[in-house]
Amino acid sequence: MAVILPFDPVAEPSLEGIIDLVKTGMEQVNTLILSRTGSEVTMIPEVATHLISSGGKRLRPMLTLATARLARYQGDGDVKLAAAVEFMHTATLLHDDVVDDSEMRRGKLAARMLWGNEASVLVGDFLLGQAFRMMVEVGNLTALDILSTAAVVIAEGEVAQLAAAKNTATTEDAYLNVIRGKTAELFAAACEVGPVIAERQKAEQAACRSYGMNLGIAFQLVDDALDYGGSRAKLGKNVGDDFREGKITLPIVLAFRRGNDEERAFWRRCLEEGDIQDGDLEHAMEILTRHRALSDTVDRARHYGAIAKDALGLFEDGEAKRALLDVVDFCVARAR
Amino acid sequence: MAVILPFDPVAEPSLEGIIDLVKTGMEQVNTLILSRTGSEVTMIPEVATHLISSGGKRLRPMLTLATARLARYQGDGDVKLAAAVEFMHTATLLHDDVVDDSEMRRGKLAARMLWGNEASVLVGDFLLGQAFRMMVEVGNLTALDILSTAAVVIAEGEVAQLAAAKNTATTEDAYLNVIRGKTAELFAAACEVGPVIAERQKAEQAACRSYGMNLGIAFQLVDDALDYGGSRAKLGKNVGDDFREGKITLPIVLAFRRGNDEERAFWRRCLEEGDIQDGDLEHAMEILTRHRALSDTVDRARHYGAIAKDALGLFEDGEAKRALLDVVDFCVARAR
Repeated sequence: MAVILPFDPVAEPSLEGIIDLVKTGMEQVNTLILSRTGSEVTMIPEVATHLISSGGKRLRPMLTLATARLARYQGDGDVKLAAAVEFMHTATLLHDDVVDDSEMRRGKLAARMLWGNEASVLVGDFLLGQAFRMMVEVGNLTALDILSTAAVVIAEGEVAQLAAAKNTATTEDAYLNVIRGKTAELFAAACEVGPVIAERQKAEQAACRSYGMNLGIAFQLVDDALDYGGSRAKLGKNVGDDFREGKITLPIVLAFRRGNDEERAFWRRCLEEGDIQDGDLEHAMEILTRHRALSDTVDRARHYGAIAKDALGLFEDGEAKRALLDVVDFCVARAR
Repeated sequence: MAVILPFDPVAEPSLEGIIDLVKTGMEQVNTLILSRTGSEVTMIPEVATHLISSGGKRLRPMLTLATARLARYQGDGDVKLAAAVEFMHTATLLHDDVVDDSEMRRGKLAARMLWGNEASVLVGDFLLGQAFRMMVEVGNLTALDILSTAAVVIAEGEVAQLAAAKNTATTEDAYLNVIRGKTAELFAAACEVGPVIAERQKAEQAACRSYGMNLGIAFQLVDDALDYGGSRAKLGKNVGDDFREGKITLPIVLAFRRGNDEERAFWRRCLEEGDIQDGDLEHAMEILTRHRALSDTVDRARHYGAIAKDALGLFEDGEAKRALLDVVDFCVARAR
C-alpha cells in the first residue's frame, strides 16, 4: 500500500525562487568576493574568509541582482555592486563585534576573539575600501551616491543605538529609527541600485528602495523575535543572546510598556544593570509571552512586509517579481 | 644705540608659504568639515569635533588645495576633496587609537578614553562614509578611484603593521612598505587628485603623486625620530611614546641591526616583551645616539624629501611650487 503524502497547495515560503533567479550572477559575485579579499597581507584573507565563508545567506547581494533583473538590466555592473553590498555588510559585522564585545558570530567564534579587536577594525576598513573601489569601477555616480550615503546612515544608526543603549524606556518609534539606519538602509540601497544602473525611471527606483527598506525592517523585527525563540518563545540554539547583551529590541520595548512596575524593575535590572541570574531568561520569555510581545513583534514585521510587497505593484508580473515577493514571505515566516 | 639683529639670508623653513597660498580654500574646507560632522545623533559631532578641533596642522587638505593650484585648477571641487582627505585621515586616527589602545592623541585624551572604543570605531566609519559622499559629489571617477584605492592601501598597511608588530628584526625595506601604506599613501592621493580634477596630463599627476608619496615617507621618518627627541635625542614632551607602546620604527630598526647581542636583548625585552623599567628610555636614547640611529633616520628622511622636491621639477616656478617645496624643507627641519 502506497503512502500518500498530503499535497500542500500553499507551498512553504522559501528563498528558492531568488536563489534560482540569480544563480549565475551569485557565482560571479562569490568569485569576485574571493578575489577582492585577496592580499599579500595574509591576515586579511584569513579574517575576511572566516566571516564570509561562515555561511551567511548572502541575501543582500541576491537582492541587488534580483532588482537589477526586475529592472531588465543588461550589463555586468550588478555583480560588482552586489559584491560591494556584501563587503559593506561584512565590514559592519566586523565593526559591530568590536562595538558589542561579541564572542560569537554566525555560530563561530567572532573574528575579534581569534585575531583581536585590531584586526576586526582594520579588516573591516579594508573591506569597506574594497567595496568603494568596486562601486567606482562600475562608474555610476547615482549608485555611488546611494551606497556612500547608506554607509553614512548605517554608521549614524549604530551610534544612535549606542547612545540609546540600555534604555528600557525607548519608544517604538525611536527603535524603528535605529533599525531603519542599522539594518534597513543597506537593504534599501542594495535594492535601489538595481533599477539605477538599469537607468529606469525614478518611480521604479523609489519602488525598489521602498521594497528594500520595508523588507529590512521586517527582517530585523523577525530577528528580534527569533532571538527569544520566535513567536512561540521556544528555547533553543542562540536564544537569549540579545537578552544577555542587554539589547533593547522591539519585544522588550512592547513588554516594558505593557508591564507593571515589578516587571519594569525586572527589565531594568537585567538589561540596564546587566544583573542576570539563573532563570531570568525563562522569566523574561514568560513575560514576553504573557504580553504577546513576541507575536506582536512578528505582526509588526508582517505589516512592513506587506508594504514591501505592495511597493513592487507597478512592476510587471514575472520570475523576478515573484522571487522578490517570496523573499518577504520567507523572512516573515522564519519567526513561526 | 640701536641693536642690529643679524639678517639670516636662509630663512627658517616654515609652512607660511602654503598657509598663505590656500588661505581662502582652507576657510571653505573648515566650514565644510564643520557642516559635514553635523548629525542629529549628538555623539557624532562631539567625538568628531574633539579630534578635528584639537589642532592638527591640516597638512593633507592643504596639499590637495596647493596641488590643485599648482595644476591651475579653476573649479571648487578641490575644497570637497580636501575635506574628504581630512575626514579619511581623522577616521584613521580614530581607528588607530582603538587598535593601539592609545590614551592620548594630540596632547588630549583620545576620543576612546572619553566615549569608548565603540564610539571611536563608529564615528570613524561615519567620517569615512562622509568622505566618500563628498568625493561622489565632486563626480570625478579618477579622483574617486585614487582615494578609494588609498583607503584600501591604508587599511592594508595597518594590518601589515599589526602582523609585523613587536618584531625587532623587521628590515628597513619591510618598515618602509608599512609606512608607505599607513602614512605616505594618503599624502600621495591627496596630492594626486589636484592635477586629476584639473584634468592635467598623466605626467603631472604622476609627479604630484610622487611628490606626495616621498613627502609622506619623509614626514613619517621625521616623526619617528622626533618621538625620541629628534636627531639630538632631547627628552621632552611626548618623547618615548613609541618606545612605551613597543612600536618598531626606523631608529629601532637601524639600532637593532647595528647593535651587539646585549643591546638586541635589551630591545627585545623592552619592545617585544613590553618589560620597560626606570631608566630604560634614557638607555634606549643613549644606544640610538651611539649608533647614529636618529640622525641617520633624519638623513633618510632628507633623501625622500629630495626625491619629493625633484618630482615637481616639470612644473613652472611660481607661488604654488615654492610653497610645496617649502613644505618638504619644513617637514625635514622639524627633526633638528
